[in-house]
Amino acid sequence: MKGLDALNAHYLAMPPVAAMQVKAVFHGDDVLALSAPLAANVNDKGCAFGGSMAGVMTLAAWGLLTLKLEAEGLPCEVYVADSHVRYLKPLYADLEAQARFEPDVDWTAFLRSLRARGRARAAMLATLHDPEGNVVAELSGRFAALRPA
Amino acid sequence: MKGLDALNAHYLAMPPVAAMQVKAVFHGDDVLALSAPLAANVNDKGCAFGGSMAGVMTLAAWGLLTLKLEAEGLPCEVYVADSHVRYLKPLYADLEAQARFEPDVDWTAFLRSLRARGRARAAMLATLHDPEGNVVAELSGRFAALRPA
Repeated sequence: MKGLDALNAHYLAMPPVAAMQVKAVFHGDDVLALSAPLAANVNDKGCAFGGSMAGVMTLAAWGLLTLKLEAEGLPCEVYVADSHVRYLKPLYADLEAQARFEPDVDWTAFLRSLRARGRARAAMLATLHDPEGNVVAELSGRFAALRPA
Repeated sequence: MKGLDALNAHYLAMPPVAAMQVKAVFHGDDVLALSAPLAANVNDKGCAFGGSMAGVMTLAAWGLLTLKLEAEGLPCEVYVADSHVRYLKPLYADLEAQARFEPDVDWTAFLRSLRARGRARAAMLATLHDPEGNVVAELSGRFAALRPA
Protein backbone atom coordinates (compact mmCIF):
# COMPACT_ATOMS: atom_id res chain seq x y z
CA MET A 1 0.00 0.00 0.00
CA LYS A 2 1.43 3.39 -0.98
CA GLY A 3 0.45 7.01 -1.41
CA LEU A 4 -3.01 8.17 -0.32
CA ASP A 5 -4.24 4.71 0.68
CA ALA A 6 -1.26 4.13 2.95
CA LEU A 7 -1.60 7.63 4.37
CA ASN A 8 -5.30 7.11 5.14
CA ALA A 9 -4.51 3.78 6.83
CA HIS A 10 -1.88 5.63 8.84
CA TYR A 11 -4.40 8.31 9.90
CA LEU A 12 -7.05 5.72 10.81
CA ALA A 13 -4.56 3.88 13.03
CA MET A 14 -4.40 6.91 15.34
CA PRO A 15 -7.46 6.94 17.65
CA PRO A 16 -7.80 10.75 17.91
CA VAL A 17 -7.44 11.10 14.12
CA ALA A 18 -9.94 8.31 13.48
CA ALA A 19 -12.36 10.16 15.79
CA MET A 20 -11.94 13.32 13.70
CA GLN A 21 -12.69 11.20 10.57
CA VAL A 22 -9.82 12.81 8.69
CA LYS A 23 -9.35 11.63 5.11
CA ALA A 24 -6.71 12.50 2.52
CA VAL A 25 -8.62 13.27 -0.68
CA PHE A 26 -6.03 14.66 -3.10
CA HIS A 27 -2.27 14.51 -3.56
CA GLY A 28 -0.85 16.63 -6.34
CA ASP A 29 2.39 18.37 -7.13
CA ASP A 30 3.61 19.24 -3.61
CA VAL A 31 0.02 19.73 -2.39
CA LEU A 32 -2.01 17.50 -0.10
CA ALA A 33 -5.72 18.04 0.62
CA LEU A 34 -7.56 16.55 3.61
CA SER A 35 -11.21 16.56 4.52
CA ALA A 36 -13.05 15.97 7.81
CA PRO A 37 -16.79 16.22 8.50
CA LEU A 38 -18.03 19.10 10.65
CA ALA A 39 -20.23 16.74 12.73
CA ALA A 40 -17.18 14.96 14.17
CA ASN A 41 -15.36 18.25 14.78
CA VAL A 42 -18.03 20.65 15.98
CA ASN A 43 -17.77 22.81 19.08
CA ASP A 44 -20.44 24.15 21.46
CA LYS A 45 -21.23 27.01 19.05
CA GLY A 46 -22.06 24.81 16.06
CA CYS A 47 -18.84 25.64 14.20
CA ALA A 48 -15.54 23.82 13.87
CA PHE A 49 -13.61 23.23 17.11
CA GLY A 50 -10.29 25.13 17.08
CA GLY A 51 -8.40 22.05 18.19
CA SER A 52 -9.75 20.09 15.21
CA MET A 53 -8.90 22.94 12.83
CA ALA A 54 -5.31 22.96 14.09
CA GLY A 55 -5.22 19.15 14.09
CA VAL A 56 -6.39 18.78 10.47
CA MET A 57 -3.90 21.40 9.25
CA THR A 58 -1.09 19.73 11.22
CA LEU A 59 -2.00 16.34 9.72
CA ALA A 60 -2.09 17.79 6.21
CA ALA A 61 1.43 19.21 6.50
CA TRP A 62 2.67 16.06 8.24
CA GLY A 63 1.13 13.90 5.50
CA LEU A 64 2.57 15.96 2.65
CA LEU A 65 6.11 15.70 4.02
CA THR A 66 5.65 11.98 4.71
CA LEU A 67 4.52 11.34 1.11
CA LYS A 68 7.31 13.50 -0.31
CA LEU A 69 9.95 11.52 1.58
CA GLU A 70 8.43 8.21 0.47
CA ALA A 71 8.52 9.42 -3.13
CA GLU A 72 12.21 10.26 -2.70
CA GLY A 73 12.84 6.72 -1.46
CA LEU A 74 13.70 8.07 2.00
CA PRO A 75 10.87 7.04 4.32
CA CYS A 76 11.22 8.85 7.67
CA GLU A 77 9.55 9.42 10.98
CA VAL A 78 8.00 12.89 10.69
CA TYR A 79 7.30 15.08 13.72
CA VAL A 80 5.85 18.55 14.15
CA ALA A 81 8.40 20.76 15.91
CA ASP A 82 6.40 23.97 16.28
CA SER A 83 3.45 25.69 14.67
CA HIS A 84 1.66 29.00 14.58
CA VAL A 85 -2.08 28.98 13.90
CA ARG A 86 -4.26 31.96 13.08
CA TYR A 87 -8.02 31.49 13.38
CA LEU A 88 -9.57 34.01 11.00
CA LYS A 89 -13.29 33.23 11.03
CA PRO A 90 -15.68 30.55 12.30
CA LEU A 91 -16.27 27.62 9.95
CA TYR A 92 -19.81 26.20 9.71
CA ALA A 93 -18.96 23.51 7.13
CA ASP A 94 -16.77 20.44 6.71
CA LEU A 95 -13.07 21.00 7.30
CA GLU A 96 -11.16 21.18 4.01
CA ALA A 97 -7.41 21.63 4.46
CA GLN A 98 -4.55 22.06 2.01
CA ALA A 99 -0.85 21.80 2.84
CA ARG A 100 2.16 23.05 0.88
CA PHE A 101 5.84 23.64 1.52
CA GLU A 102 6.95 27.17 2.31
CA PRO A 103 8.12 28.72 -0.98
CA ASP A 104 11.67 29.14 0.31
CA VAL A 105 12.21 25.51 1.34
CA ASP A 106 15.50 24.35 -0.19
CA TRP A 107 14.68 20.73 -0.95
CA THR A 108 18.23 19.94 -2.11
CA ALA A 109 19.65 21.18 1.20
CA PHE A 110 16.92 19.29 3.07
CA LEU A 111 17.82 15.98 1.39
CA ARG A 112 21.54 16.63 1.85
CA SER A 113 21.01 17.14 5.59
CA LEU A 114 18.81 14.05 5.80
CA ARG A 115 21.40 11.85 4.07
CA ALA A 116 24.38 13.31 5.96
CA ARG A 117 22.94 13.68 9.46
CA GLY A 118 19.83 11.49 9.41
CA ARG A 119 17.59 14.45 10.16
CA ALA A 120 16.28 17.65 8.58
CA ARG A 121 13.60 20.29 9.07
CA ALA A 122 11.20 21.87 6.61
CA ALA A 123 8.90 24.87 6.95
CA MET A 124 5.35 24.12 5.83
CA LEU A 125 2.05 25.92 5.37
CA ALA A 126 -1.53 24.72 5.66
CA THR A 127 -4.86 26.46 5.26
CA LEU A 128 -8.50 25.68 5.91
CA HIS A 129 -11.12 27.17 3.64
CA ASP A 130 -14.88 27.42 3.64
CA PRO A 131 -17.17 26.30 0.76
CA GLU A 132 -16.83 29.76 -0.83
CA GLY A 133 -13.06 29.36 -0.90
CA ASN A 134 -12.29 31.87 1.85
CA VAL A 135 -9.36 30.98 4.10
CA VAL A 136 -10.73 30.56 7.64
CA ALA A 137 -7.53 29.45 9.38
CA GLU A 138 -3.85 29.08 8.53
CA LEU A 139 -0.94 27.24 10.02
CA SER A 140 2.78 27.75 9.52
CA GLY A 141 5.03 25.22 11.14
CA ARG A 142 8.33 23.42 11.09
CA PHE A 143 8.37 19.67 10.67
CA ALA A 144 11.29 17.39 11.44
CA ALA A 145 12.14 14.23 9.51
CA LEU A 146 14.26 11.50 11.09
CA ARG A 147 15.72 8.56 9.19
CA PRO A 148 15.13 5.21 10.91
CA ALA A 149 18.24 4.06 12.76
CA MET B 1 -24.20 23.73 37.40
CA LYS B 2 -21.09 25.92 37.72
CA GLY B 3 -17.33 25.74 37.79
CA LEU B 4 -15.56 22.49 36.95
CA ASP B 5 -18.76 20.43 36.57
CA ALA B 6 -20.22 22.91 34.08
CA LEU B 7 -16.91 23.10 32.24
CA ASN B 8 -16.68 19.31 31.97
CA ALA B 9 -20.26 19.16 30.67
CA HIS B 10 -19.27 21.82 28.15
CA TYR B 11 -16.23 19.78 27.02
CA LEU B 12 -18.26 16.56 26.77
CA ALA B 13 -20.84 18.29 24.56
CA MET B 14 -18.19 18.75 21.84
CA PRO B 15 -17.74 15.46 19.91
CA PRO B 16 -14.00 15.89 19.17
CA VAL B 17 -13.33 16.83 22.81
CA ALA B 18 -15.41 13.92 24.10
CA ALA B 19 -13.34 11.64 21.83
CA MET B 20 -10.15 13.00 23.42
CA GLN B 21 -11.69 12.24 26.88
CA VAL B 22 -10.56 15.62 28.18
CA LYS B 23 -11.41 16.33 31.82
CA ALA B 24 -10.86 19.42 33.96
CA VAL B 25 -9.33 18.17 37.21
CA PHE B 26 -8.28 21.29 39.13
CA HIS B 27 -9.21 24.96 39.17
CA GLY B 28 -7.19 27.14 41.48
CA ASP B 29 -6.12 30.76 41.67
CA ASP B 30 -5.93 31.62 37.94
CA VAL B 31 -4.80 28.08 37.07
CA LEU B 32 -6.76 25.34 35.34
CA ALA B 33 -5.51 21.77 34.97
CA LEU B 34 -6.87 19.28 32.44
CA SER B 35 -6.15 15.61 31.93
CA ALA B 36 -6.70 13.27 28.98
CA PRO B 37 -5.69 9.60 28.67
CA LEU B 38 -2.87 8.69 26.30
CA ALA B 39 -4.90 5.79 24.83
CA ALA B 40 -7.46 8.17 23.30
CA ASN B 41 -4.74 10.54 22.06
CA VAL B 42 -1.97 8.28 20.86
CA ASN B 43 -0.26 8.54 17.47
CA ASP B 44 1.36 5.92 15.26
CA LYS B 45 4.58 6.06 17.31
CA GLY B 46 2.95 5.21 20.66
CA CYS B 47 3.26 8.75 22.00
CA ALA B 48 0.79 11.64 22.22
CA PHE B 49 -0.55 12.95 18.90
CA GLY B 50 0.56 16.55 18.32
CA GLY B 51 -2.98 17.61 17.44
CA SER B 52 -4.25 16.29 20.77
CA MET B 53 -1.41 18.02 22.63
CA ALA B 54 -2.32 21.34 21.01
CA GLY B 55 -6.03 20.66 21.51
CA VAL B 56 -5.73 19.93 25.24
CA MET B 57 -3.61 23.05 25.82
CA THR B 58 -6.06 25.16 23.80
CA LEU B 59 -8.99 23.79 25.84
CA ALA B 60 -7.17 24.48 29.10
CA ALA B 61 -6.60 28.14 28.24
CA TRP B 62 -10.12 28.46 26.83
CA GLY B 63 -11.58 26.90 29.98
CA LEU B 64 -9.58 29.10 32.34
CA LEU B 65 -10.75 32.29 30.65
CA THR B 66 -14.34 30.99 30.52
CA LEU B 67 -14.32 30.25 34.28
CA LYS B 68 -12.67 33.60 35.08
CA LEU B 69 -15.39 35.48 33.20
CA GLU B 70 -18.13 33.48 34.92
CA ALA B 71 -16.60 34.31 38.29
CA GLU B 72 -16.64 38.00 37.32
CA GLY B 73 -20.36 37.72 36.54
CA LEU B 74 -19.60 38.35 32.85
CA PRO B 75 -20.24 35.09 30.99
CA CYS B 76 -18.93 35.34 27.43
CA GLU B 77 -18.38 33.36 24.28
CA VAL B 78 -14.64 32.64 24.27
CA TYR B 79 -12.69 31.98 21.05
CA VAL B 80 -9.06 31.22 20.31
CA ALA B 81 -7.65 33.92 17.99
CA ASP B 82 -4.14 32.60 17.42
CA SER B 83 -1.65 30.31 19.08
CA HIS B 84 1.95 29.26 18.91
CA VAL B 85 2.83 25.73 20.00
CA ARG B 86 6.29 24.34 20.63
CA TYR B 87 6.64 20.56 20.83
CA LEU B 88 9.68 19.89 22.99
CA LYS B 89 9.75 16.12 23.47
CA PRO B 90 7.52 13.09 22.86
CA LEU B 91 5.07 12.23 25.64
CA TYR B 92 4.49 8.55 26.46
CA ALA B 93 1.99 9.17 29.28
CA ASP B 94 -1.42 10.72 29.86
CA LEU B 95 -1.75 14.35 28.79
CA GLU B 96 -1.63 16.68 31.80
CA ALA B 97 -2.08 20.35 30.89
CA GLN B 98 -2.01 23.54 32.92
CA ALA B 99 -3.17 26.96 31.74
CA ARG B 100 -2.40 30.40 33.16
CA PHE B 101 -2.73 34.00 32.05
CA GLU B 102 0.38 35.67 30.66
CA PRO B 103 1.97 37.57 33.57
CA ASP B 104 1.46 40.92 31.86
CA VAL B 105 -2.30 40.57 31.27
CA ASP B 106 -3.98 43.73 32.58
CA TRP B 107 -7.22 42.29 33.90
CA THR B 108 -8.65 45.74 34.77
CA ALA B 109 -8.14 46.92 31.19
CA PHE B 110 -9.56 43.63 29.91
CA LEU B 111 -12.78 44.05 31.92
CA ARG B 112 -13.02 47.73 30.95
CA SER B 113 -12.83 46.81 27.26
CA LEU B 114 -15.35 44.01 27.71
CA ARG B 115 -17.86 46.31 29.44
CA ALA B 116 -17.32 49.23 27.04
CA ARG B 117 -17.01 47.43 23.69
CA GLY B 118 -18.46 43.98 24.40
CA ARG B 119 -15.15 42.30 23.49
CA ALA B 120 -11.62 41.93 24.77
CA ARG B 121 -8.51 39.78 24.22
CA ALA B 122 -6.19 38.13 26.69
CA ALA B 123 -2.81 36.45 26.21
CA MET B 124 -2.62 33.04 27.79
CA LEU B 125 -0.11 30.26 28.36
CA ALA B 126 -0.51 26.51 28.64
CA THR B 127 1.96 23.70 29.17
CA LEU B 128 1.92 19.93 29.02
CA HIS B 129 4.20 18.00 31.35
CA ASP B 130 5.29 14.39 31.71
CA PRO B 131 5.00 12.35 34.95
CA GLU B 132 8.47 13.60 36.02
CA GLY B 133 7.25 17.20 35.72
CA ASN B 134 9.21 18.08 32.59
CA VAL B 135 7.45 20.42 30.17
CA VAL B 136 6.96 18.51 26.90
CA ALA B 137 4.98 21.16 24.99
CA GLU B 138 3.93 24.75 25.47
CA LEU B 139 1.31 27.00 23.93
CA SER B 140 1.04 30.77 23.95
CA GLY B 141 -2.09 32.23 22.46
CA ARG B 142 -4.55 35.05 22.38
CA PHE B 143 -8.14 34.38 23.30
CA ALA B 144 -11.08 36.64 22.55
CA ALA B 145 -14.12 37.08 24.79
CA LEU B 146 -17.42 38.34 23.36
CA ARG B 147 -20.37 39.43 25.48
CA PRO B 148 -23.65 37.90 24.30
CA ALA B 149 -25.65 40.45 22.29
